[in-house]
Amino acid sequence: MQGLHIIADLYSCPKGDYLVSADALRELCVTACKNAGLSILGEHFYQFDSFDQVQAGGATGAVILAESHLAIHTWPERDGATLDIYVCNVTGDNSPRAESLYASLLASLLPADVMVKRVWRGKEPPIKVAA
Amino acid sequence: MQGLHIIADLYSCPKGDYLVSADALRELCVTACKNAGLSILGEHFYQFDSFDQVQAGGATGAVILAESHLAIHTWPERDGATLDIYVCNVTGDNSPRAESLYASLLASLLPADVMVKRVWRGKEPPIKVAA
Repeated sequence: MQGLHIIADLYSCPKGDYLVSADALRELCVTACKNAGLSILGEHFYQFDSFDQVQAGGATGAVILAESHLAIHTWPERDGATLDIYVCNVTGDNSPRAESLYASLLASLLPADVMVKRVWRGKEPPIKVAA
Repeated sequence: MQGLHIIADLYSCPKGDYLVSADALRELCVTACKNAGLSILGEHFYQFDSFDQVQAGGATGAVILAESHLAIHTWPERDGATLDIYVCNVTGDNSPRAESLYASLLASLLPADVMVKRVWRGKEPPIKVAA
């Protein structure tokens, strides 16, 4: 149950499809997870309507991973996004994969300003022996 | 983009459907989100196979909320689960709803031991005026 959780709030992201399109965001996230060597079990993304009937609405979604999850929410009207990458170390230390995924998403979203926190989660109770 | 993120690792959960059934976990999470007054946009849950062909496999999933997300992963072989509740304060302070959801899930999962961290996320760049 141990693993790295990267919590990042991204600001001053240049305008692009990723903040305003659930489809583009899904494609970005799924491709980035695969390239980082993570195992996708499913995903769900949602397109928000415009909040003021003028500017494009944001997008939100999650990729469910065998190693835990990636979640992302965008606020195009504030040029921002919030990002969670949580990976468990079931089969080995997956932290490098989490960092690789994080770097890849930053390279696409290009925030000029980031607030990031790394939380090392969990302890490791012993696996029970089958009765 | 500001909001409360409750990060909780739950240990010594009594055996029950929730840790070993993606369907039961989905039902629990969806009902708890609705009861907490949160708005569900979608969800995806996944059932793991048994890791040793004897004990039941775990479950994992996420509920995508208008207010952000709930994510949960279970390790029945360790009597544990990890939980993330992140809510943004788009239309007002949603922290009481996050706390209500957290309390409700604890009341069902009944962990004897919890490691919990509350992270206050984000700053609030101004909303841009439409051109």
